[in-house]
Amino acid sequence: MTQQLDYFFNPNGVAIIGASANPAKLSYGVVKNMKTHNYPGPIYPVNPKGGEILGLPVYTGILEVPDPLDLAVIMIPAPLVPGTLAQCGERGVKVAIVITGGFKEAGPEGAELEASLKRIAEQYRMRLIGPNCVGVMDTHLPLDTTFITQMPEPGAIAFVSHSGAICGGTTDWAISVGVGYSRIATLGNQVDVDIADGLRMTEHDPHTKVINIYAEGLPDGRDFVEAAARIYRQKPIVLLKAGLTSAGTRAVASHTGALAGTERAYRAAAHRAGALVVDSLQQMNDVAMALATQPLPSGNRVVLLTNAGGPAALAADELERQGLVMANLAEETIARLKAVTPRDAQLGNPVDMLGGPNAEMYDAALRILAEDPGVDMLMALFVPQAITPVGDVARNIVKAAQVISTDLVESVPSDAAKSVPPYPASARYPVSRIPYSVSSKPLVACMVGGASIPEAVKLLNRGGVPFYRDPNRAAQALGGLWAYKALRERPDLTPVPLADVDRAAARAALVDAGGPGSGRAEGQGSSEAGEREAGSVRSAIANRFLDAETAARVVAAYGVRVPVSGVAGTVSGAVMLAERSGYPVVLKLIAPDVVHKLDVGGIALDLRDADAVRAACARLLAERPGARVMVQQMIPQGIEVILGAQRDAQFGPLLMFGLGGIYVEVFKDVAFRLAPLCAQDARDMIAETAAGKLLAGVRGQPPGDVVAVVDTLLRVGQLVHDFPCIAELDINPLIVGKAGEGVWAVDVRIAVTDTPED
Amino acid sequence: MTQQLDYFFNPNGVAIIGASANPAKLSYGVVKNMKTHNYPGPIYPVNPKGGEILGLPVYTGILEVPDPLDLAVIMIPAPLVPGTLAQCGERGVKVAIVITGGFKEAGPEGAELEASLKRIAEQYRMRLIGPNCVGVMDTHLPLDTTFITQMPEPGAIAFVSHSGAICGGTTDWAISVGVGYSRIATLGNQVDVDIADGLRMTEHDPHTKVINIYAEGLPDGRDFVEAAARIYRQKPIVLLKAGLTSAGTRAVASHTGALAGTERAYRAAAHRAGALVVDSLQQMNDVAMALATQPLPSGNRVVLLTNAGGPAALAADELERQGLVMANLAEETIARLKAVTPRDAQLGNPVDMLGGPNAEMYDAALRILAEDPGVDMLMALFVPQAITPVGDVARNIVKAAQVISTDLVESVPSDAAKSVPPYPASARYPVSRIPYSVSSKPLVACMVGGASIPEAVKLLNRGGVPFYRDPNRAAQALGGLWAYKALRERPDLTPVPLADVDRAAARAALVDAGGPGSGRAEGQGSSEAGEREAGSVRSAIANRFLDAETAARVVAAYGVRVPVSGVAGTVSGAVMLAERSGYPVVLKLIAPDVVHKLDVGGIALDLRDADAVRAACARLLAERPGARVMVQQMIPQGIEVILGAQRDAQFGPLLMFGLGGIYVEVFKDVAFRLAPLCAQDARDMIAETAAGKLLAGVRGQPPGDVVAVVDTLLRVGQLVHDFPCIAELDINPLIVGKAGEGVWAVDVRIAVTDTPED
Repeated sequence: MTQQLDYFFNPNGVAIIGASANPAKLSYGVVKNMKTHNYPGPIYPVNPKGGEILGLPVYTGILEVPDPLDLAVIMIPAPLVPGTLAQCGERGVKVAIVITGGFKEAGPEGAELEASLKRIAEQYRMRLIGPNCVGVMDTHLPLDTTFITQMPEPGAIAFVSHSGAICGGTTDWAISVGVGYSRIATLGNQVDVDIADGLRMTEHDPHTKVINIYAEGLPDGRDFVEAAARIYRQKPIVLLKAGLTSAGTRAVASHTGALAGTERAYRAAAHRAGALVVDSLQQMNDVAMALATQPLPSGNRVVLLTNAGGPAALAADELERQGLVMANLAEETIARLKAVTPRDAQLGNPVDMLGGPNAEMYDAALRILAEDPGVDMLMALFVPQAITPVGDVARNIVKAAQVISTDLVESVPSDAAKSVPPYPASARYPVSRIPYSVSSKPLVACMVGGASIPEAVKLLNRGGVPFYRDPNRAAQALGGLWAYKALRERPDLTPVPLADVDRAAARAALVDAGGPGSGRAEGQGSSEAGEREAGSVRSAIANRFLDAETAARVVAAYGVRVPVSGVAGTVSGAVMLAERSGYPVVLKLIAPDVVHKLDVGGIALDLRDADAVRAACARLLAERPGARVMVQQMIPQGIEVILGAQRDAQFGPLLMFGLGGIYVEVFKDVAFRLAPLCAQDARDMIAETAAGKLLAGVRGQPPGDVVAVVDTLLRVGQLVHDFPCIAELDINPLIVGKAGEGVWAVDVRIAVTDTPED
Repeated sequence: MTQQLDYFFNPNGVAIIGASANPAKLSYGVVKNMKTHNYPGPIYPVNPKGGEILGLPVYTGILEVPDPLDLAVIMIPAPLVPGTLAQCGERGVKVAIVITGGFKEAGPEGAELEASLKRIAEQYRMRLIGPNCVGVMDTHLPLDTTFITQMPEPGAIAFVSHSGAICGGTTDWAISVGVGYSRIATLGNQVDVDIADGLRMTEHDPHTKVINIYAEGLPDGRDFVEAAARIYRQKPIVLLKAGLTSAGTRAVASHTGALAGTERAYRAAAHRAGALVVDSLQQMNDVAMALATQPLPSGNRVVLLTNAGGPAALAADELERQGLVMANLAEETIARLKAVTPRDAQLGNPVDMLGGPNAEMYDAALRILAEDPGVDMLMALFVPQAITPVGDVARNIVKAAQVISTDLVESVPSDAAKSVPPYPASARYPVSRIPYSVSSKPLVACMVGGASIPEAVKLLNRGGVPFYRDPNRAAQALGGLWAYKALRERPDLTPVPLADVDRAAARAALVDAGGPGSGRAEGQGSSEAGEREAGSVRSAIANRFLDAETAARVVAAYGVRVPVSGVAGTVSGAVMLAERSGYPVVLKLIAPDVVHKLDVGGIALDLRDADAVRAACARLLAERPGARVMVQQMIPQGIEVILGAQRDAQFGPLLMFGLGGIYVEVFKDVAFRLAPLCAQDARDMIAETAAGKLLAGVRGQPPGDVVAVVDTLLRVGQLVHDFPCIAELDINPLIVGKAGEGVWAVDVRIAVTDTPED
């Protein structure tokens, strides 16, 4: 079905169902855009009234439309859509876009209508975008099924957006600054084609170099993560998600009814996906403009060329925040700069030409700077001033860019072109770039101004030099290139299933724990499907905690070391267990209503003989009928960490790691990843936290057994992946011994979903 | 001298020395701007050639210029400036602006020339802006001594900038979006008038509601902090400082040779100053636009009115990050909204009018929303679409704003007008606002777009509704209003000197420590002057550590509790001391070359009898000729915190507080304040850190003695303020007992400057 998605951007024949001859109607706008924005194939307006629109004959029904016909754009009242969609299926339409609103977002009736669209599309094996969307654009074919007045210039940014309005606003902005786009898709209610499909629709497009995503919900979060993780090394994915905070979630829910996940789950998912996370439209466009036009840097050393110190100082501050450094220029570079810059220019980094450069100096100086082997990236800064014409400065920066930062080729790479179905790539915009040549260096431009720069802004953006109004934003864009390079070169994060786990034993422990869900504790068949199901019902279910002994058995079955222990219901039984495991021992209260043992004095430490065990046990069991005590070997001193798991509705199981004991609540210094994870992920989680620094050994303390912590993270990740019924899991503390000593899961809590469907 | 600063913006008579008749020259530009931007007083071009410029007679020397003459703008080659400046003094000029560059920034010769300007200005009691600057503007008088082509519209934002180029760029931007300014000053090398004077020049201006500062260095940081702290409750101060990071510092240093402080010292200073810190020009303008035009909110509840869900969802996310919340609308409000919004509008928060509102609905809905007592702030969002004319939407938002968010009065408040010297406030822009009426509510606007919105942008900004291109930026602007409200209402932070400190004993201990600087350890006369002096030479001096015993004596003299202790050079001496203080005791090695005792095993804990002391002491002293041991009472268990002080070149002494022991290096969880501090500051420092959370008592742990920590912070703050020779001080750990038990400064390190000048 993925191949079929290509018809959305490359259809041979487009019908507009519900096309109106009234120029005030949006459906007239679509016909007009299809025609005036130069779609090269046949356009078929459809309306029972017949007649003519913009010189095109109007067909009275979809069944009357002749061949070729790949795509139907549907703009008729919601109740009529299902019938018409079925007709499209009969007619052999391959893909459809339903622009009409009034479906799920309008209430239960609309939701039912929407469900019928899904059934019809499946029946006829059509792919469907919408309903409640604004359609798609391909600036290179060109194709424009929207009613948005203008189309952006051809370019290399694809934009996949949940929201049609955001696309409209972005188009309006793009036109004003000369930023080009390749493909734009608005997905609306996503009854069929979703954000993950949006990635698939752009990944093979030879004109697309970077994919921008605006998402509200990501109901099938794992599918998105997997698609993105496959693509991001070829094409950067810039991800903006609304509804991260509780306020945003409410705003999204009232808008589309989409499920919204917590911010931490989202960040963990974006990390696995390899997406560049941004928090605003401005950031999304800023970084995409650089990724779409610039090569990737070989290193993080930046040189600034400017005609004023202030903006360069601000840029330098921001560069450092972005993890970039100011390049040290070679003596030779400085000598060469002397010849092409004003007499009083300050030839360090920044290269400050002060108030008096002429425009040509920008070209000459940039070329010299780019040849310095100590320079990896360049930024040209300019403040408009009476002496130097702004447009000339822009032209000279573009002139330099043609040498420094771009590798223009005559046509798209032939292997990429092969992947384009029916229509050949348009010849209208034949010049494309080899993605990320390393022989050239990124260059961005910043002009601090407004009234005098609009022409320069367009000149720069059209000339392949991304323009920013603010020095900090220009520096952030370079930071984005550097961040993408790091992402692209990071180790593979594909989890490898562990062989040495005892799945049957874990299942047995979960079954023994009783309760209606226990019999189906393990995911059946594809565990991914199980997870998705579990996630989708998460909010409706109550979770139930296993007793401590069972929880310990479950993790032990997956190879997590738990202290030698037993459970007794009497004082004499406790003493017997203590004698068996050897002193000192620890007693822990087991009572169904006690979760935080520390809070009720439910733990007795360092009991060194039978008398001490007797006294402590009597205290713990007093006035708690039915309570028992766990008798555990006392673990040697070590670093206390926490290892936890929870399940997110959109992205499935998540692992958490951080400093344990009371510190977890004080510092909240924890790292999250999607489970299961690979060893690299586990090592990264540890390194991100203060716990990791403690484990590395601080001020004469011996280092902890990091290898054992990594191993435990992998095992718990596998466990919560294998058993979707595990809703929450906490090992707190996990005591980490010295290198080679291993770890002990001293206190394990597991909550399972208590639902027969799981 | 402060009153004299008013002449810069309100001079009666302006001479332009070095004025040229050649339109290509910048000095021609200044004469042109003075004339065409309608300065209402006499303009005197001065040039030995004589003649006429733009119809104005040219005087051949400053001595020939007739009365009235308050201000001289000097634009002649640097070597000629001192002589001419002296002539200005002779002539009775009150203030001068030296635009010419080529002074300190050009090298040692220039620095000497610059020093002579300072001497001349002092001699004639002139105030001086520059050299190496672009002059000043007052849009209300109006006055424009710059050569920047255009002047912004009159408005309520003052801008004081180190950099002339940044002012030029800002002006260009302001014109393009219709944002108004009141006064603009570029200060260049700040030989006389500095950033703190910039505050003083705008604080009494009746047209200025908010003061923007762009600073590169703040050499006299304390003066700035004091001026700002006096002003910020009347007028918000938005502060952007370049050169915070090491990269930025280099960029600044090569530009102006200004001293740059560390980021932490800067943040602490800005906190004391009451300034709103921003990191970019964009942020500075975004927040200033709201502060200049909007009332302050009574609460943090925001309502969003929109024609599209996506931008509202993004705004909602950002609002939460800003500490704001989405308002809950009253039933009555929703009922009233029904009558004025489209049928399918979603009437929650956000109020989403979907694709079909007409422009008038914005006016009507905003008025209804503003009347809801549960709403404190409003944001109008709009995405351009074919149906609704953008300009009409802007006009309707402005119409609503005139009721909701502004209190227009016919003239400036009379008491404010009184403070304006020589010239009366111009009548050209008579409408001003009573600052921060509480009867109205802030309203900001966001339109996501570009090509179709330029007219709307100007309509909104000129109509008193700040416009933002990005939903996140609009939310950040509301966050800025809320942050300023909190600043304005915070408790007074003026430090109160402590009476019960033994300054003489501390001085005696510092003197006993020996070394050339010890005799002058205490600041003479004004301790502030002493600090400034100490700060300015900081980088040139080497510091010297006091021995542990002396360091303990110094803090003890200021009332900080140190454990009972003594120092012995022999094993038998150590045992004698231990017997005296009572077991258990701690031994600490005192050896001149050992700073981090833990790293060399230089501490022996919990020694419970004479034998244990003997053994440990022998080990510590072995093979360390001349070493001694400190014998200390062993302190009960408690929470270990760190309390430190250091001295910043720009802002003087700083205090640090955080979690102590090895955690200080792992977590870097510390808070900084300028010293001395008040009790509120000390309490805030504690509350900002994880150490504070531990002190409050976590999970059954008893709370620590916070009162004693506050007391200790105040005492150490006073100490480092009183003794500028103390360059660094660390108490690590300070052990905090349970509430009422007090604290113990277990390990005190003090480094003093080793310089006779101190």
